[in-house]
Amino acid sequence: MTKSAGFSCLSCVFDYETSKTLVIPSKGIGCVFRFAQLLVLLYVVGYVCVMQKAYQERDPVISSVTTKVKGFAYTNTSYMEPRFWDVADYVIPPQGENSFFVLTNVIMTPKQIQSRCPELPSPSTSCVDDCDCFEGHNDPRGSGIQTGLCVNYSATVQTCEVLSWCPLEQDTMVPEPALLNAAADFTVLIKNSITYPKFKVNRRNILPHINSSYLKKCEFNPSTDPDCPIFRLKNIASEAGEDFQDMAVKGGILGIFIDWSCDLDWGAHRCFPKYSFRRLDNKNPVNNVAPGYNFRFAKYYQTPDGQESRTLIKAYGIRFDIIVFGTGGKFGIVPTIINLGAALTILALIPAVCDWILLTCMSKRDLYKKNKVTHLNEADSEPVSD
Amino acid sequence: MTKSAGFSCLSCVFDYETSKTLVIPSKGIGCVFRFAQLLVLLYVVGYVCVMQKAYQERDPVISSVTTKVKGFAYTNTSYMEPRFWDVADYVIPPQGENSFFVLTNVIMTPKQIQSRCPELPSPSTSCVDDCDCFEGHNDPRGSGIQTGLCVNYSATVQTCEVLSWCPLEQDTMVPEPALLNAAADFTVLIKNSITYPKFKVNRRNILPHINSSYLKKCEFNPSTDPDCPIFRLKNIASEAGEDFQDMAVKGGILGIFIDWSCDLDWGAHRCFPKYSFRRLDNKNPVNNVAPGYNFRFAKYYQTPDGQESRTLIKAYGIRFDIIVFGTGGKFGIVPTIINLGAALTILALIPAVCDWILLTCMSKRDLYKKNKVTHLNEADSEPVSD
Amino acid sequence: MTKSAGFSCLSCVFDYETSKTLVIPSKGIGCVFRFAQLLVLLYVVGYVCVMQKAYQERDPVISSVTTKVKGFAYTNTSYMEPRFWDVADYVIPPQGENSFFVLTNVIMTPKQIQSRCPELPSPSTSCVDDCDCFEGHNDPRGSGIQTGLCVNYSATVQTCEVLSWCPLEQDTMVPEPALLNAAADFTVLIKNSITYPKFKVNRRNILPHINSSYLKKCEFNPSTDPDCPIFRLKNIASEAGEDFQDMAVKGGILGIFIDWSCDLDWGAHRCFPKYSFRRLDNKNPVNNVAPGYNFRFAKYYQTPDGQESRTLIKAYGIRFDIIVFGTGGKFGIVPTIINLGAALTILALIPAVCDWILLTCMSKRDLYKKNKVTHLNEADSEPVSD
Repeated sequence: MTKSAGFSCLSCVFDYETSKTLVIPSKGIGCVFRFAQLLVLLYVVGYVCVMQKAYQERDPVISSVTTKVKGFAYTNTSYMEPRFWDVADYVIPPQGENSFFVLTNVIMTPKQIQSRCPELPSPSTSCVDDCDCFEGHNDPRGSGIQTGLCVNYSATVQTCEVLSWCPLEQDTMVPEPALLNAAADFTVLIKNSITYPKFKVNRRNILPHINSSYLKKCEFNPSTDPDCPIFRLKNIASEAGEDFQDMAVKGGILGIFIDWSCDLDWGAHRCFPKYSFRRLDNKNPVNNVAPGYNFRFAKYYQTPDGQESRTLIKAYGIRFDIIVFGTGGKFGIVPTIINLGAALTILALIPAVCDWILLTCMSKRDLYKKNKVTHLNEADSEPVSD
Repeated sequence: MTKSAGFSCLSCVFDYETSKTLVIPSKGIGCVFRFAQLLVLLYVVGYVCVMQKAYQERDPVISSVTTKVKGFAYTNTSYMEPRFWDVADYVIPPQGENSFFVLTNVIMTPKQIQSRCPELPSPSTSCVDDCDCFEGHNDPRGSGIQTGLCVNYSATVQTCEVLSWCPLEQDTMVPEPALLNAAADFTVLIKNSITYPKFKVNRRNILPHINSSYLKKCEFNPSTDPDCPIFRLKNIASEAGEDFQDMAVKGGILGIFIDWSCDLDWGAHRCFPKYSFRRLDNKNPVNNVAPGYNFRFAKYYQTPDGQESRTLIKAYGIRFDIIVFGTGGKFGIVPTIINLGAALTILALIPAVCDWILLTCMSKRDLYKKNKVTHLNEADSEPVSD
Repeated sequence: MTKSAGFSCLSCVFDYETSKTLVIPSKGIGCVFRFAQLLVLLYVVGYVCVMQKAYQERDPVISSVTTKVKGFAYTNTSYMEPRFWDVADYVIPPQGENSFFVLTNVIMTPKQIQSRCPELPSPSTSCVDDCDCFEGHNDPRGSGIQTGLCVNYSATVQTCEVLSWCPLEQDTMVPEPALLNAAADFTVLIKNSITYPKFKVNRRNILPHINSSYLKKCEFNPSTDPDCPIFRLKNIASEAGEDFQDMAVKGGILGIFIDWSCDLDWGAHRCFPKYSFRRLDNKNPVNNVAPGYNFRFAKYYQTPDGQESRTLIKAYGIRFDIIVFGTGGKFGIVPTIINLGAALTILALIPAVCDWILLTCMSKRDLYKKNKVTHLNEADSEPVSD
């Protein structure tokens, strides 16, 4: 010990301790080492940075959607009186949040009033006399509350009488082709405003470089007009691989997906939406119940004598769900350090692997071992070369 | 220096430099070292991989929901005329996006027309003569715009006259038990279609192995029928720890949570929804305002002479919010490398800790130090062993 | 080799191998080394832990919202008859999920029936005789299906006759100021219930320390009443930097953002919502189409003789979108280990950099190199000091 014992703690802190190293002029192990380093570098640059952009912080998109459907149609079929339909008639409810519904087919039961009438014939509702009907019985598959009477449904059939809105709706026959299949040519304007709150970036699907005159006449087309926010309904269906006329009969649900996955490092002005379309309900009749899409609602009227009557409407149609998703990504120090750290650790793993190769696989392994590794012989208090 | 000075840069690059090491045959420090390594390995395999599945990339679920309520009821109470209710009457609006509302109680004020009538009595509306009322005064807690007149509300009470829809609604008495408590036995079919866009996986809550005949008669039960998408309303309430009849009186909000947390490494076909239920509004009357859930709407009529009249409906009921959440996870290289890197770094930390133990805590620390650490004496230009 | 060849594999496993090190008493390189370590430490503690809280697991918020608007207004303008408006009249639909619409302006077209009438005059609809009109022609910019006749619109103008709901709506003149600009003083109560499913934390925007009596009279104010869930509509607009009266004429969309970014390590009771407001639709008329916000709906009536008539309403108004976002964060082992690992790796990078400085930039670099690095001369089988 040539050093004085008065070695201060401070100098202890500022002394620099580095590991002793051995340089081995072996081209073989050197190549393996450098090649492995190159692979890790390629992974980091190519996969992590270019493909996955893992150096970015991410923020999911927050969205607000409005829709406006345009078009009208005139129907003249045997199912109902000639009728003109405009947007107030076929868009129900008049405004949705992230979806809109376009009526395509309808079963109307006008002039229903609260009264008594015979059930629709079916095995569970037909009867011979009053003993087959139970007062107050409420069959979920029936149409009302049984009064306990058995009455004539037609000249030949007797069914239990029920308290209900009468006359009862008969929905076994759905008009085909769909009543309002002219809806295929309706158009919808979709306005979508989004925010990435973490990055304080706001965008709209009507891009700044688009002017009003283009917007007034354009129509979305994935190849020629990918930025136009006006969609023809039949094109939405065909992009989703469906036939609008087929869907119109029993209804269905079409998803309009707006993908806002953006790389904000290039500036918010290069952040564009990408549209895609897919049918969301199940066409397959095997594992399905209530296929298509429909719902019932009523228009209520008051007869001059104050009695309430209603028109029951079973509305079949296509619900368009506008589903906005995606994340914005922007350079972030934390994910960068994490990915860099992980890559460096893998780099640091390489010497361990190379050492193992060096000491077990190489022909001169004993020479390398002797120079690299010193075995401490505790008994002798002196190190020995291995 | 036996090496020639003409050492090319290339050989410099391919020379392999490895650290010189010292092997210490101490079982104590060796055990500590291996045990610490084992702990880190256990953490990586057990916690990171098996429990947290941190090697997976994650993608939040994107969802579309449709609902269809079934059931009808007959009410015969003192509050209103006998009435039959079906789905078009009690589901308002007829279709929602991620929620549906079932009417359970109602305060109806029929035959309202735009006119003048005395305010409902209250300390702020009672008056003695016209001087107590102010024309045009708009009291937010009142029912209309004051005309400035003080008129008879009843034989004994005088209140200010207001311009409003008259007669005024009286909503202090809520029918109890709830008018439509038969709604407890209504059922709802929930169809939920989901997507993990990053993994291009689509799933439905009606699972492929379920057939139509089962769907027509099944009813959800967490233990016996966990896959059936048809729910009885009273069961939803009881699963949420609530009593349906209690909630029905003043209304409330029930959350139907569908958890789509899926491990997609096992294939999308093993990705199932898990249902849970919870009341979302606040029952606690202490820090609450407007408890329960209700809203007002009106049905508008036209009298034969063209005047508009309306039936104002204060609808109490239960709103069922279908809340779909969860993330899909699938093996990803970036998160795997990151977690592996982190674990390896912790592994690399162990030698530093062991060295510290070696050089400060062990009895033979001076021997170890002498062999491991060389002190460079700058003055002598010769290293000395410590 | 003083060690016996019978070295068992077990002792091989438990021998501890540590690198030989060289201590260099250079204050310069020591300072660089410690300073770099300090920087990394500061980054980890200051940026990663305190600012980014990167040691936390994150879970996005799941939300359910209800709204209740209060207020009434009396309108007496030249555009329509004097009318009293309450919540059932101006909130359409009566309940939304995450948004509510308040009617502020209206174009009513009463007593429409399905019939024939002359088109509104425009270059494409005016005609001289029947040859200019085509039976069945459906012009998307028109108002109905042409019958092929050219009829008198007024004494001087002839237009094509159409099948439509007649009389046609004339929406070129929007009432200004807005009919219901009294809506500025309406208030809305927003109830928001949220969940972080991963952490099983539920919160409401009506905080536990707020009592009912405060809730009955409070009004949101960002500085004095930041916790009150009752908002005056004109204040929402002004917080968003808009003028309510301006917006009311043509309608618009206002976003009410509720930020639930919470640090749950401090307990769920310290998790509060933060409100902010922003206009979501585009005011800029240059790259816009259909500015403002409006939709059409109809009230359907039945005339005494059974014919259907309707009042078409073009409703202008403000849609308030309640957008709930944010993530909850709670200490998690995996992210902690990952960030620690990354930081340690950067720490481990420092010696490599210092070594490079040591061996290339320092004046005594040859001395250091000689003592640190040993060159193996494969020919001699003996190492040489560099």
